[in-house]
Amino acid sequence: MEISENALIKGIKRFEAPSDRVIRGIGDDGAVVDMEQGSYVFVQDAMTEHIHFEFAFMEGYDIGRKAVYINVSDILAMGALPLYFMVTIGIPAKMSYRDIQQIYKGMRRAAKEFDILLLGGDTTETKTDFFIDVSMVGKIVTRYYFGRNRAGKGDLIAVTGVLGESAYGLSLLKEGRTDRGLMRFIRRYRAPQPPYAVWKELVKHDITTSMMDVSDGLIIDLEKMMAESKKGARINLDQVPMPRLLKKESKESLALAGGEDYQFLFTFPPHKREALSSITEMGFPISIIGEVDTGKGVRLFEKGKEKKIAQKGYEHFGDTA
Amino acid sequence: MEISENALIKGIKRFEAPSDRVIRGIGDDGAVVDMEQGSYVFVQDAMTEHIHFEFAFMEGYDIGRKAVYINVSDILAMGALPLYFMVTIGIPAKMSYRDIQQIYKGMRRAAKEFDILLLGGDTTETKTDFFIDVSMVGKIVTRYYFGRNRAGKGDLIAVTGVLGESAYGLSLLKEGRTDRGLMRFIRRYRAPQPPYAVWKELVKHDITTSMMDVSDGLIIDLEKMMAESKKGARINLDQVPMPRLLKKESKESLALAGGEDYQFLFTFPPHKREALSSITEMGFPISIIGEVDTGKGVRLFEKGKEKKIAQKGYEHFGDTA
Repeated sequence: MEISENALIKGIKRFEAPSDRVIRGIGDDGAVVDMEQGSYVFVQDAMTEHIHFEFAFMEGYDIGRKAVYINVSDILAMGALPLYFMVTIGIPAKMSYRDIQQIYKGMRRAAKEFDILLLGGDTTETKTDFFIDVSMVGKIVTRYYFGRNRAGKGDLIAVTGVLGESAYGLSLLKEGRTDRGLMRFIRRYRAPQPPYAVWKELVKHDITTSMMDVSDGLIIDLEKMMAESKKGARINLDQVPMPRLLKKESKESLALAGGEDYQFLFTFPPHKREALSSITEMGFPISIIGEVDTGKGVRLFEKGKEKKIAQKGYEHFGDTA
Repeated sequence: MEISENALIKGIKRFEAPSDRVIRGIGDDGAVVDMEQGSYVFVQDAMTEHIHFEFAFMEGYDIGRKAVYINVSDILAMGALPLYFMVTIGIPAKMSYRDIQQIYKGMRRAAKEFDILLLGGDTTETKTDFFIDVSMVGKIVTRYYFGRNRAGKGDLIAVTGVLGESAYGLSLLKEGRTDRGLMRFIRRYRAPQPPYAVWKELVKHDITTSMMDVSDGLIIDLEKMMAESKKGARINLDQVPMPRLLKKESKESLALAGGEDYQFLFTFPPHKREALSSITEMGFPISIIGEVDTGKGVRLFEKGKEKKIAQKGYEHFGDTA
C-alpha cells in the first residue's frame, strides 16, 4: 500500500460514527465505552481470502459489509442486540488505499443498519493473503440467552427465509451466469443481511428454545444444535424452503449443505405454534421443517421415506464461539 | 491440518478455564458473560507471520503468549484491568494440530497470569500465512481512563523498565547469537510480559496523566501521545534506560526506535514526583526521561545538546485502537 500509518488511521477515523456512547474512540491504545449492568454476548468471526471468498467474486465494499453481517448474525442468534465492534484487517501489498476505504464503507453501511459502532481495531500488513476479522459485543435482550443447548424433545424445528440462495449465488458466479433474473442469489451471497425483522417478532413473542444461524449448512448446523442439546432431529426435505430453481436444476443439496445462508434455525415447543402462525400470517417467512426427538444426529425424510444424507455442509475448522 | 473441525473445537475447548463468570462459553454462536455497570476498554491486536514474527525465531507457545500480552498491555495502558478475550487463528495447511495446541497453551499461560478468560473466537484456514488476532475487554479501575490526550504542559515524562531489550533480542536472533548471557533479551522479545506490578503502584498512587505502551518505539509513540495531547516533548538520551550492551555496541537507536518494548510510557505532574520516588525506592524500575512543553513533536537532547532523530520507530499500518 502506498500510504503511511498515520494517513491510514486518519482515513479510518473518518468511518467512526460520532456518538455520545463512546467516551474514547479510535486514536488510543483502546476504546472506552460505558456499559450498563447485564448479560453480554461476545463473538469473533473472520473471512480470509481464497478460503471464504475471492476478490474476483466480491468487491471490498461487499467484504466489509459481509464481515459485519456474519457477526451481527451470531449476536442475534444468541438473543442479543449488537452494540459495538472492532476489526482487524490484514493487508497484502497488492491492495490499494481505495480498496481499504471500500471495505470500511461496506462496514459502515452494515453498522448503520444495525445501529452499531466501530470502536477501532488493528490494520496490519500481511505477506500474501488478505483477511478481515471482526469482534462484536451485544447485550442479551431476551429472557434467557438463545443457546444451541436448549432444544427439548417434541419441539418443532423451523427456519427463517429461504435456504440455498447464497450457495446458489456463489455457484452462479463460478459458472459466470450473471443474468439479471439470477442477481438476487448473487446479492444474497455477497450481502447476507440477517433477517432482523422476523428475529424481532420471534423475540417479541418469546417463541424459541434453541436458536443458531445457518452458516455452514442446514444439516451440519442442526447436527451441532442437536449435539449440544443431546437430542436428535427429523427433518422433511419437502418442507425445507428453497428457490424453485434449485429443484429444477437438481441442486437441492445447496439448501441442505450449501452454507452461508445466515438465516435463523430454531426450535420451539408445540404450544407456541399458534403464536408462530400469527407471525407468518403477518408475512414473515418461516418454515416448520421437522421435529426434535430423543435420537442422535439428524435424519432426513422425503415424502415419509428416510433419505441418505450425502453431504452435510461446509467443514472448515470453525467457530469456537 | 490433519484434523476435523469438530475435533479441533473439542481440543480448543480443553483450554477454556472453567469459571462461574461465564454463563455460556465455547460451543455456541457466541459466549455469554454477566458484566456490571462501568466503563470498559476494548482492544484488538494481531500478529501476522513474516510481518510481526518468523516461526524460525518464535515457537507456537511464545506466539500465543505474546498475542495475549500485547493486548493486556493495551488494556493496562488505558487504566483498565483485563477480563475476557477472544481469538481468531488463521491456519495454513503447513501447520499441525500440535502447533495449534502449543499456541493455545501459550495463551492459557498468559491468561492465567492476568486472571483473564478465553471466551472463544474463530479458527479459519488460510491459503498461505499464519495469523493470530486477539480481542480483549477490560474494566476501567482508575479515576479516569489513561488516554494519550491528557499530557499537560510542564508534566514530566517517564518510562517503566528498560527499553530496547526486545529489539536487541530480535537482532541477536537474526545474527544467530544465542549465548546464555544474552538469552534475557531474546526472552523479552519472545515473551514481553507487561510490567503489571509497577503498573499497580502507578495506579494506586494516582501518578499519571497520559499513559500508553511502547510498542512501535519510544520516539514514534511519544510523538503520537504529544499529537493527541497537542503538546511537545523534550527527552534526554542520557536518561533513557537501556541495557549497557546497547551503548557498547552503538545500538542506542534500538532503545529509541526498536519497538515491541511493551513498557509503559507516561506523563505526570511535577507535584507527583515525591509519590513516584516512593515507588522507585520500593525497587520498581521507573526512569524520568524528559518533560512536556508547548512545542510540537519530540526533541531529543544528549548532554544538553539537541540531537537529530535518525529513526523514529516501526512504521506499520498500525492500531486504530
